[in-house]
Amino acid sequence: MTRDPRHDVLFEPIQLGPKTLRNRFWQVPHCNGAGSDKPGFQAMHRGMKAEGGFAAVFTEVCMVAPDSDAMPWVGSKLIDQGDIQNLRMMTEEAHRHGCLAGVELTHGSSFCFNAETRMPNRAPSQIPNEMEGMSSAREMSLRDIRKMQRDHVDAALRAREAGFDLLTVFCGLATVPNYFLYPWNNKRTDEYGGSFENRARFTVELMQMMRAEIKDCAIGIRFPIDTLDAPFGYGDQGIRAEGEGVKFIELLDDLVDYWDINIGTLNWGEDAGSSRFFETNHEAPYTRHAKRVSKKPVINVGRFTDPDVMVKAINSGQCDIIGMARPSIADPFLPNKIRDGRYEDIRECIGCNVCVSRWEKGGPPIWCTQNTTAGEEYRRGWHPEIFVPTRNPEPAVMVVGAGPAGLECAMVLGKRGYETVQLVDAGSAVGGHLNWVTKLPGFGTWKRVVDWRKTQLSLHTHVGIELNTRLSLDDILNYGAQHVIFATGSSWDTTGMSAPIHDYIAGADASKPEIVTPDQYVRDGKAVGKRVVVIDHDAYFMGSAVAIDLAEKGHEVVYLTHNESVGPYLRYTLEEQRVHMKLMELGVKLLPLQFAVSVEGGKVTSVNKWTNEETETAYDSVLMVTWRKSECAIYDQLQAQPERLKEAGITSIHLIGDAHTPGMIAQATFSGARLAREFDTEDPDTHQPFIRERRLIGATEEDYRLGAQTLSAAIGGGR
Amino acid sequence: MTRDPRHDVLFEPIQLGPKTLRNRFWQVPHCNGAGSDKPGFQAMHRGMKAEGGFAAVFTEVCMVAPDSDAMPWVGSKLIDQGDIQNLRMMTEEAHRHGCLAGVELTHGSSFCFNAETRMPNRAPSQIPNEMEGMSSAREMSLRDIRKMQRDHVDAALRAREAGFDLLTVFCGLATVPNYFLYPWNNKRTDEYGGSFENRARFTVELMQMMRAEIKDCAIGIRFPIDTLDAPFGYGDQGIRAEGEGVKFIELLDDLVDYWDINIGTLNWGEDAGSSRFFETNHEAPYTRHAKRVSKKPVINVGRFTDPDVMVKAINSGQCDIIGMARPSIADPFLPNKIRDGRYEDIRECIGCNVCVSRWEKGGPPIWCTQNTTAGEEYRRGWHPEIFVPTRNPEPAVMVVGAGPAGLECAMVLGKRGYETVQLVDAGSAVGGHLNWVTKLPGFGTWKRVVDWRKTQLSLHTHVGIELNTRLSLDDILNYGAQHVIFATGSSWDTTGMSAPIHDYIAGADASKPEIVTPDQYVRDGKAVGKRVVVIDHDAYFMGSAVAIDLAEKGHEVVYLTHNESVGPYLRYTLEEQRVHMKLMELGVKLLPLQFAVSVEGGKVTSVNKWTNEETETAYDSVLMVTWRKSECAIYDQLQAQPERLKEAGITSIHLIGDAHTPGMIAQATFSGARLAREFDTEDPDTHQPFIRERRLIGATEEDYRLGAQTLSAAIGGGR
Repeated sequence: MTRDPRHDVLFEPIQLGPKTLRNRFWQVPHCNGAGSDKPGFQAMHRGMKAEGGFAAVFTEVCMVAPDSDAMPWVGSKLIDQGDIQNLRMMTEEAHRHGCLAGVELTHGSSFCFNAETRMPNRAPSQIPNEMEGMSSAREMSLRDIRKMQRDHVDAALRAREAGFDLLTVFCGLATVPNYFLYPWNNKRTDEYGGSFENRARFTVELMQMMRAEIKDCAIGIRFPIDTLDAPFGYGDQGIRAEGEGVKFIELLDDLVDYWDINIGTLNWGEDAGSSRFFETNHEAPYTRHAKRVSKKPVINVGRFTDPDVMVKAINSGQCDIIGMARPSIADPFLPNKIRDGRYEDIRECIGCNVCVSRWEKGGPPIWCTQNTTAGEEYRRGWHPEIFVPTRNPEPAVMVVGAGPAGLECAMVLGKRGYETVQLVDAGSAVGGHLNWVTKLPGFGTWKRVVDWRKTQLSLHTHVGIELNTRLSLDDILNYGAQHVIFATGSSWDTTGMSAPIHDYIAGADASKPEIVTPDQYVRDGKAVGKRVVVIDHDAYFMGSAVAIDLAEKGHEVVYLTHNESVGPYLRYTLEEQRVHMKLMELGVKLLPLQFAVSVEGGKVTSVNKWTNEETETAYDSVLMVTWRKSECAIYDQLQAQPERLKEAGITSIHLIGDAHTPGMIAQATFSGARLAREFDTEDPDTHQPFIRERRLIGATEEDYRLGAQTLSAAIGGGR
Repeated sequence: MTRDPRHDVLFEPIQLGPKTLRNRFWQVPHCNGAGSDKPGFQAMHRGMKAEGGFAAVFTEVCMVAPDSDAMPWVGSKLIDQGDIQNLRMMTEEAHRHGCLAGVELTHGSSFCFNAETRMPNRAPSQIPNEMEGMSSAREMSLRDIRKMQRDHVDAALRAREAGFDLLTVFCGLATVPNYFLYPWNNKRTDEYGGSFENRARFTVELMQMMRAEIKDCAIGIRFPIDTLDAPFGYGDQGIRAEGEGVKFIELLDDLVDYWDINIGTLNWGEDAGSSRFFETNHEAPYTRHAKRVSKKPVINVGRFTDPDVMVKAINSGQCDIIGMARPSIADPFLPNKIRDGRYEDIRECIGCNVCVSRWEKGGPPIWCTQNTTAGEEYRRGWHPEIFVPTRNPEPAVMVVGAGPAGLECAMVLGKRGYETVQLVDAGSAVGGHLNWVTKLPGFGTWKRVVDWRKTQLSLHTHVGIELNTRLSLDDILNYGAQHVIFATGSSWDTTGMSAPIHDYIAGADASKPEIVTPDQYVRDGKAVGKRVVVIDHDAYFMGSAVAIDLAEKGHEVVYLTHNESVGPYLRYTLEEQRVHMKLMELGVKLLPLQFAVSVEGGKVTSVNKWTNEETETAYDSVLMVTWRKSECAIYDQLQAQPERLKEAGITSIHLIGDAHTPGMIAQATFSGARLAREFDTEDPDTHQPFIRERRLIGATEEDYRLGAQTLSAAIGGGR
């Protein structure tokens, strides 16, 4: 393959003050759970993108002072010598691959509860924080303001010492510069409050101080140019692109080497928009205004995965550099794949926001549905593009079930050189439950999980695919496989067992015509009456998704849930507000905090969580979204009959994905990758230990370096 | 002082299998945020209690296998050699003080989402977890059950290797043994499900395996003997003290050396009950049944702080050993103080559950309102009973304001040997806002914050107290102090500025007769009409507390809040359910998800968070609980006039507690302690760095030991 010459513009170098960016791919700051306390994780996660062709890789928010402590959310820190030591590992890793290393200098002001440092906080004005209600701050005096600016500059100097090339001052959501800029946060009456010039004064002075002391780094600003209207944003208490947005850029243009422009609101799901509600490059109507007034290179984000869209953004004058967070997680090698014209290998972000949810959940390492190696580069020594060749390619492996887990597992086995891998599925296409889930409104982009793996299997492996084949226990025994991997998925419970009450909802039996499960409704087309009660006793997207689908098709929908709102995990994926508003817009009636106890005589009886009060709701049909049950019957039967396995020449059987434990798609793909990558260990069902980065009493530095060694040993000369 | 001979029983040794407990004080397992990844913190926090006279100190839940990963909640782990190394520091610290070290071996089963390890989970039956809705698990096969038991025993062997004396198998909330025991979780039809004997089989076998392999440790069980009725507990799907509770104890009595007995429910606030709803020893009606059937020593908990209550619990045959979590945090030296008859020095737990809230919030180190050194033993080198003598005792220090921050600050300064400390307050008694907050229903126990400090000031310091004195700026300049510390607190906003919308609620002005703030209502007795709308735009207890108080006094109360429920932080203090039920019981009408926008013409107009729909609510009075504003005007004026300070001979001024940033009481007392403990550093307004336990690239073991060195240096030969 060769590159389409129209994409050449993406590989033109560009100057940012004293630094040269080798191409136009820029990994904007995003969290990954590493911070500066897990230096190996941080270094290798960013370093992988450097290796994959990005010209700049950034930390997540990097706190400039100890009173910017967002715990349990995980940011980097540059507050002491140890942070410098730890983050230097990241800058070295970036430089090793010819990539610039960037840091996002941040003070979270009143957003930070300082749960770890126990310090009181500082803000332009004293009002409790709108996002973290327990958190307040002292209104800074003039002396305090100078100290706050100094703290930023000192951290910038530490960043320079750690080897960072690009120093971004974060003027986004929950930062001191923006708390000064927005009338929403700034109620001051002195020279730092009131007029636009006064509200921008803090940042102007800060940038002047930084430039006076630091000459050899490029210094820029990450700035949301628009804060949107209510109910998403601050309305006239924030800033708008065509008003103070461009004014801010004009005012500061001489003081920066680049602008990293996005939008920023109370709900950052409007920026990191999920694919359920947002198309690629959805911020352009706002962000395109920056280049109208700036003479400096401008970065935009927009879940860019398509090089044509990227080129258009540059050629149309929208921006100069393509910023990516989620697409860079889904495919760290996206730049190199475009460079080399390997378009079909691009693993496109599906916009599910499981990555975002990890930060929002407070602490866990990043997950990615598409890239199963994200966050595992150091601790498990996994490389997204390099697969350790198996030492034993001969045995025949059968993977039963071609959903996300089975597809990933077969693909990785194939890439590792297993010569005989057969992927068998009962359906007429690979994809498992994604074939019907992606028919729900907004979920089309998730199909990329299937499409990419299907392409990879055909282009880069010899894995055989057998469709329309539902295997019995005897079929499996007689198949001739030496190893059988069950990826047989799960199905929605039909019995009326309810997850939150651990008991049966009386009368709720999906063999009745009026009781319907999501798979019966979407996949099988089971008929649903006019008045539908959706019982959502799940925690994620399915309940609200079918409610929206039904309402859009004209049904009268009541949405009944034990949760306070829609599936609580949607808060972490930043979709809660949009889902909620969609339900309202469609006239769906909400019954939160209700446990369904019976579904009989045309009425759902439910009980209020707090009051025990009963509610009755009439229905023609009930859509029962309670929980998913693993499809593992044949595995269980075989596990109990080792003699029959032996007789059939089957050495091992394994269970992955939803067939083991129903979970998110990211858990299924990971499960498949994990088994395949560790398939030739002594006991592949038991995970190999991973490197836990922590203080270790009595350990030597060598013990800590083990992770890097593991990685090098695993991939040999491959890098 | 000498000990009351009636308390002697508390100091009688008792045998637990192969181990001898030196007295009857037992720190039951409780979280502190250390786990096994912050070994210094863990060791010194537990070690402090060992030094203070406890006979046994335990870890928090200690995970036996990597698929028991509760992240972001912080538990210990014993899954690899590093965990053994790290936790050995704790056992050594306990032993150094003649104390036994205990571990609480736990597998969290389907409660654990395995967000870090990314492993699928194992449970008796496959139903999503009731507390962590995203988490499910595979139903264990017989082989899996054996493996799970083996995992527990292997962890027990690692615990033994780490030096633990007491091995507690946790059979409480969210553990495999109890998920087998409760019909709520166990839906099996094989020999591990159904009958009581079948449901207890897992634990019986496990204990047999452990005893067969470990002879030189005492082995016990932590067991909630009753799981309560709905809506708190599992009803007939759990176990009841007089039924299967005692049956379980009878069945396993020969297999344990001790029983650690509490109650356990869906809502563990019924166990770790806040003082707002529970008296000391409130679990006795359930837990007392254990000793009826057991021949082994029995531990009970019950927020014990009064030695008379402890002695009665033992002498009445309720239990043999006094278990404590929260009281041991509030006063690690409680045993020694009873031993030595220093009753007036006991720092009693106030039952506010801020300690619990840290675990619930997922990660941050423990806080304690009463013991400002909790969690700071290692990282800041603080000792609750030892105060580093000041090198400069002469200068006169004035503390303005005798609320929690001022009291703590003056007390610590006094204990550090400052010779001239004057505590001045405008009120007629010390205590600040606690003098009126503690009049709210259920808050009486919080008065201990004031009482203990008042006693300490009079018994152990020469601090002068001047009441009924409201100082003007000139008064302060002329007072003759060299250092002035402002602890002048905060007051509830009267202007109608709303924290969640950062704007004024139209017409909401507490100078009007019908608009009332909490301090006006409770402290000043401002009249409130029949129909009251409580606008709770705060995040903690005040809104619901005044609503309850008003309803109990016969008002018709509407409780309007932007939150989904009562103050969201009450979820973390485990008080949400009880508060909610109390409001319901009193007939308070709830309007959640509402932002108040105007309070005019006898109607509150509010807007729904999701729908923007308006609601009007008629009132006679409005109780406006929006946010607190610092009282720092004089400090601000003085800070701006350095020449006048100089003229008056004032070298420094400082701002602490709510006067700096309104917060929780734990933040105020900490703020006072922090300033006083670091008062003779070069810049006492800037916190001294603390030891951050983390992996540090390029660091030596010596660097990590710095914490312990700091502590030793700070307290000299004091230990």
